[in-house]
Amino acid sequence: MLQNEPAKQDIIYAYERIKNHIHRTPILTSSALNSIFGCELFFKCENMQKVGAFKFRGASNAVLSMDKNDLQKGVSTHSSGNHAAALALAAKIQNIPAYIVMPRTAPQIKKAAVEGYKGKIIFCEPTLQAREETLSKVVEKTGAVFVHPFDNYSIIAGQATCAKEIYEDLTGLDYIITPVGGGGLLSGTCLSTKYFSANTKVIGAEPKGADDTFRSIRDGMIHPSVNPKTICDGLLTQLSNKTFTIIRNNVTKIITVEEESIVKAMRMIWERMKIIVEPSSAITLAVILENKDQFTSKRIALILSGGNVDLDHLPWN
Amino acid sequence: MLQNEPAKQDIIYAYERIKNHIHRTPILTSSALNSIFGCELFFKCENMQKVGAFKFRGASNAVLSMDKNDLQKGVSTHSSGNHAAALALAAKIQNIPAYIVMPRTAPQIKKAAVEGYKGKIIFCEPTLQAREETLSKVVEKTGAVFVHPFDNYSIIAGQATCAKEIYEDLTGLDYIITPVGGGGLLSGTCLSTKYFSANTKVIGAEPKGADDTFRSIRDGMIHPSVNPKTICDGLLTQLSNKTFTIIRNNVTKIITVEEESIVKAMRMIWERMKIIVEPSSAITLAVILENKDQFTSKRIALILSGGNVDLDHLPWN
Repeated sequence: MLQNEPAKQDIIYAYERIKNHIHRTPILTSSALNSIFGCELFFKCENMQKVGAFKFRGASNAVLSMDKNDLQKGVSTHSSGNHAAALALAAKIQNIPAYIVMPRTAPQIKKAAVEGYKGKIIFCEPTLQAREETLSKVVEKTGAVFVHPFDNYSIIAGQATCAKEIYEDLTGLDYIITPVGGGGLLSGTCLSTKYFSANTKVIGAEPKGADDTFRSIRDGMIHPSVNPKTICDGLLTQLSNKTFTIIRNNVTKIITVEEESIVKAMRMIWERMKIIVEPSSAITLAVILENKDQFTSKRIALILSGGNVDLDHLPWN
Repeated sequence: MLQNEPAKQDIIYAYERIKNHIHRTPILTSSALNSIFGCELFFKCENMQKVGAFKFRGASNAVLSMDKNDLQKGVSTHSSGNHAAALALAAKIQNIPAYIVMPRTAPQIKKAAVEGYKGKIIFCEPTLQAREETLSKVVEKTGAVFVHPFDNYSIIAGQATCAKEIYEDLTGLDYIITPVGGGGLLSGTCLSTKYFSANTKVIGAEPKGADDTFRSIRDGMIHPSVNPKTICDGLLTQLSNKTFTIIRNNVTKIITVEEESIVKAMRMIWERMKIIVEPSSAITLAVILENKDQFTSKRIALILSGGNVDLDHLPWN
């Protein structure tokens, strides 16, 4: 796995490594939304990526970057979200085990996703301490390699391939907007933008109720995410050392938005574009919704990071 | 407007006429669904067409086929569904009025769609007689040209452009499956298949609770659609003389499916493909679901006819 911040060539290699495993996701446009917002929006549909989220890019790059000998005992992580499913699938393709530490309280739908990809779930109590202790024990017992969801340069290089594809398909973008939780996608997007489209400004979209990244970049230090309150279940975590450094050095700004705007933006995407995105994706359009004037007449790429939603519990029901 | 059954050249002309107004909709695939069903499925996404349904193809071809002098007084139709919105938008683009006769009981969402495209709604009582009488009066008073939703060769030629696009993008298809209500899309699909991909078999998908087309083709006569019971609100109508004749002469068969399979297929498409389709679209996958063995290892195009769903009332809630 990569030991240093990914260079341009590392992202190019990452793409070559994973391109036959991932979907090259479509970039969709909507004349209705362009007309409502007075700008040109390009939606990169990572909701249609394998496992329904961009996370599969990073996970497959991490697994495919490792030495075969190191891999034989498998990989492990703690996550109840899209990274867990992504790592399980990446491991399944390599025919190695994936050990996923997950709180007992995780929703059934998340457990089913991991099990569907033959991941082995180890349950723990729903506390940070229990999670880390359990993971430690699993790694010790099995010899599996721990793959952190974002504090990992191979993961970051993998997530960077998403913006790389965008810049292959589109030129002259004024802005690219991605959600920010732990910062893996935003870090990768910052690096690909620096290397492949240096004139494009990078914006991180964050819920006001979980604005630790906004405060961290403002204050030059990592603030923890304490009791985040947001519908965006993919954006609850805080930055890591690696993602903080990359984002701090490269991002144009972090914009925070209200929950109400996220739900409104999500419904607009569903109704106008006929695609299913999770709240953590829709937040990118919420940024436009709350700051229309700033984006008038601009060309803007929005990364729709995932589409894993519980269809029995929609935010407008 | 066309006075005879569309010839090959009529469909080619229709496509040239409308191609700058319509979206060339994507054809999506899902490795998960291919693996579940053991065949190769190609989903033509007319849910992403303008107005959210294939109907805009026919409506724009009809409007653009008319003599400018005949058009000045506008167009009219009776419909509470996708054809109403499609005709309103096609008229708006030509800067002529569209008069839409609609039952007072039509859902708010349908009224809003027509009004959004500046269509003029004339309400009537929710009976066939009231609808026809009201339309008659509107035509007499305004001089607007009546554009029937499917018993119209220009409409049929327009709908045929959908399958034409599929055959431009894909070769060697064993089957093409489309929903059938009034038969406009199925008629157009039959004709394009005959002209552009003669070895492909055409299947019409119909709810068991609204199986008038199945019975009409079996018995060689148009059966009326009496008290249809189905979640597929786009498939309630019966064939017309024009659609019956084309379908009878060209379709391979009509396959009817249970409501339960339609809901199950709809949810599979939403969850696996992350796209929003209405029940009338999902019925094409329900055909595969109920007849898996028949389609093993085949290459099959499914036309996802539309994506206009009331997100506040989903069939699994």
